Amino acid sequence: MSPAIFVDALQNELQSIQYGHSPAELYDPIRYIMSLGGKRMRPLMTLMATYLFTDDWQKAVRPALAVEVFHNFTLMHDDIMDQAPLRRNQPTVHEKWNGNVAILSGDVMLVNAYQLLLSVEGDKLKPALERFSRTAAEVCEGQQMDMNFETRWDVTEGEYIDMIRLKTSVLLGYALELGGLIAGAGETTRQHLYEGGMNIGVGFQLKDDLLDVYGDPAKFGKQVGGDIIANKKTFLLIEALQQAQGSVREELTDWLTKTTFDKAEKVQAVTAIYDQLGIRQLTESRITGYFDRGFANFDQVDADPDRKKLLIQFAHQLVERES
Amino acid sequence: MSPAIFVDALQNELQSIQYGHSPAELYDPIRYIMSLGGKRMRPLMTLMATYLFTDDWQKAVRPALAVEVFHNFTLMHDDIMDQAPLRRNQPTVHEKWNGNVAILSGDVMLVNAYQLLLSVEGDKLKPALERFSRTAAEVCEGQQMDMNFETRWDVTEGEYIDMIRLKTSVLLGYALELGGLIAGAGETTRQHLYEGGMNIGVGFQLKDDLLDVYGDPAKFGKQVGGDIIANKKTFLLIEALQQAQGSVREELTDWLTKTTFDKAEKVQAVTAIYDQLGIRQLTESRITGYFDRGFANFDQVDADPDRKKLLIQFAHQLVERES
Repeated sequence: MSPAIFVDALQNELQSIQYGHSPAELYDPIRYIMSLGGKRMRPLMTLMATYLFTDDWQKAVRPALAVEVFHNFTLMHDDIMDQAPLRRNQPTVHEKWNGNVAILSGDVMLVNAYQLLLSVEGDKLKPALERFSRTAAEVCEGQQMDMNFETRWDVTEGEYIDMIRLKTSVLLGYALELGGLIAGAGETTRQHLYEGGMNIGVGFQLKDDLLDVYGDPAKFGKQVGGDIIANKKTFLLIEALQQAQGSVREELTDWLTKTTFDKAEKVQAVTAIYDQLGIRQLTESRITGYFDRGFANFDQVDADPDRKKLLIQFAHQLVERES
Repeated sequence: MSPAIFVDALQNELQSIQYGHSPAELYDPIRYIMSLGGKRMRPLMTLMATYLFTDDWQKAVRPALAVEVFHNFTLMHDDIMDQAPLRRNQPTVHEKWNGNVAILSGDVMLVNAYQLLLSVEGDKLKPALERFSRTAAEVCEGQQMDMNFETRWDVTEGEYIDMIRLKTSVLLGYALELGGLIAGAGETTRQHLYEGGMNIGVGFQLKDDLLDVYGDPAKFGKQVGGDIIANKKTFLLIEALQQAQGSVREELTDWLTKTTFDKAEKVQAVTAIYDQLGIRQLTESRITGYFDRGFANFDQVDADPDRKKLLIQFAHQLVERES
């Protein structure tokens, strides 16, 4: 078994989804955002988790896509809230159409996600929906916390980790848990999968924050330093704000409050502050910590070692990724 | 049995719902919009439909509130799209907080609606969720059509009826169908309830359009003529635009395109055009037609006549209402 087979199955099923056609302003944006691509890592995780316990992983394809459609719904609405002009280098839905279209298309996508999840069979449907609903509410909580952080300069590491747990990690945890549930895995096993996904998810988001500053421009794909330019409250900035003292603190707050500046100069200066405070090493050590906890969770999952290898290799790719 | 007992049960259950607390910006707006009141007619319809077939209507209380929470979610998002400052004479959520809060709180409300619906028991859960999801998507389709109509002057009666069917009526149909489903009514019976709710719903919306122009100011509760002042594409305006010829048409389009005008004068002038074209009688005859069709649908429902009386009396109140 290779992950490519899972990816193909997901792509085929994605193309078969009938989102609806009329009015066009409601359904075209859904096809548009789903066509922008992405790694499809969440549904892939669901299939890998199902395959841990059964050969019949195909029955998880449609429910797995519920997680992907839900994820893209959050992107569509988050982009409105963040006034983001681009998503995967293409215009966002609220830019290409307008804000109202993005609100309403997103609403239908959330409904679509539930419709896809209704393909979970028998007595597994209710727990799948209950856990999905709880997770969906938590993702919204994380997004609201993220917005609340924008106007605060005293966010602690603990608060930041709580936020990314909710905004990003619970959905990765759910993706794995759902796969286990569909395959008939017991509650303890599902809990290990969920915790593993959560921990990998936190490491994944911290890696995202790290790459934005220390990524190789040739490999990163996006502009290195974008978060610094935008004053985005990443793990790195939060740690720097917690640690910086005296003249370093003054220099940092100076860069954060400047309204006109040379972008390259700001990126270079803030990166130098991070270097001075040892933020890179701290972030790398946290990333390793969360990924290690995730691997320890996966160790507890009672499944065929060869099949587990697929999941573990996938998680390793997430630690080692450079873009 | 009196409807007051249903209303009390709904109010008690509404107060027991735990929407969540943190972050406050996410959950306070939900409590706020749910506290603004409203007639709770949708969940009341669900309970009346359940009571048609069983004494155990209490098991429908929580699912019924799914319909109410969903309805209030649509109000929260529609108010953003319509830039409405007030809802039930109180500031709308996007005015009291901001647009982002209204988007995200609304998203969680949609999830909450599904969570409430998960209280439907056994093998009724899946059809309840499937039909709810289809209905929810249709309500979004109706809202998008309504927005599309804003920039068009050639909307036909058929298009308008299609729009209000989707935006308003399908949810009233679903409210009744859900009650029947929970009570164990068969598919044909549920279909009659759904169609009845749909037809009553179209009549209800047309009555809304009519009251805005011809309501008794002492009883109406809102400003009479509000739709005329705002150039809202109601049934009355659409009919007038379809029928007006020559100088009457010129006068009407003149009022519709004026940017400065005396409000009372515009209301009086457009109402006079409606009078001249017989729009009031036409609208009243359509309202009667849809309500009669709804009553005919209810006639087909095989249930205890005394219990049906409750539902029929309720529908009569909707025809005869003056506010």
